[in-house]
Amino acid sequence: MYSVVPIGHVRHGYSDDEVKRRGAVDAVIEVLPEFEAGLAGVEEYSHIIMVAYLHKFRGRPLVVRPKRVQGAPEVGVFATDSPDRPNPIAVTVARLVRREGRLLYVEGVDLFDGTPVLDIKGFSPKRCPEGARAPWWAD
Amino acid sequence: MYSVVPIGHVRHGYSDDEVKRRGAVDAVIEVLPEFEAGLAGVEEYSHIIMVAYLHKFRGRPLVVRPKRVQGAPEVGVFATDSPDRPNPIAVTVARLVRREGRLLYVEGVDLFDGTPVLDIKGFSPKRCPEGARAPWWAD
Repeated sequence: MYSVVPIGHVRHGYSDDEVKRRGAVDAVIEVLPEFEAGLAGVEEYSHIIMVAYLHKFRGRPLVVRPKRVQGAPEVGVFATDSPDRPNPIAVTVARLVRREGRLLYVEGVDLFDGTPVLDIKGFSPKRCPEGARAPWWAD
Repeated sequence: MYSVVPIGHVRHGYSDDEVKRRGAVDAVIEVLPEFEAGLAGVEEYSHIIMVAYLHKFRGRPLVVRPKRVQGAPEVGVFATDSPDRPNPIAVTVARLVRREGRLLYVEGVDLFDGTPVLDIKGFSPKRCPEGARAPWWAD
């Protein structure tokens, strides 16, 4: 077992239901003051990867049915993006609109208000392998 | 603070120095027996995302100089892929060669032998935003 700490939190003020309805919202990532120096240069990326801890989920099903794809089969959680998984860790790529000190203004976040952020990484297109294929039921 | 558990481990038998020298190696991800059911369907992806806990790193510098890019400036850890960061979490995309039960044979892993894996997600090209830009010093 390992312990991890929040380096910041998602802020947007929408209710959880509203986030589910919209799918993705604009948000501010409020990085904790003690970690602000770690953001230097991040504003040079158009997009960032956020590793978030989905604190409202801690189900441990191992088999799920992708919700957003009609007719999807039951598959293992590791083949999906379900928030209910052994470690409720999300990996989200969002557009970085601007940085103001320790605040990162982002677009396209499917995370609830108050979600702890464990890490931020600048997104480089090099991370995307060429010719990658996903099954039809991938959400 | 949150706790996370390994769902498996990286196995390849190379020394840490050899992994650093090669940059990336072929490996087997050995998922723990109790999580095997979560892998159903993952073999339909050509690539997987591994979220790993870099157990040999726990430096907490907030400013680093990207090592693999000559002349790179000092920037914040959140603008880099440095393993030394507040939470030593790696997000790695690797080609999935094949699955044999709870063993995933992968290519292109820059993780040390024995590294705990916290999560696996099927990689969908939808995760890559169009027109993303990274700075010249991104590694």
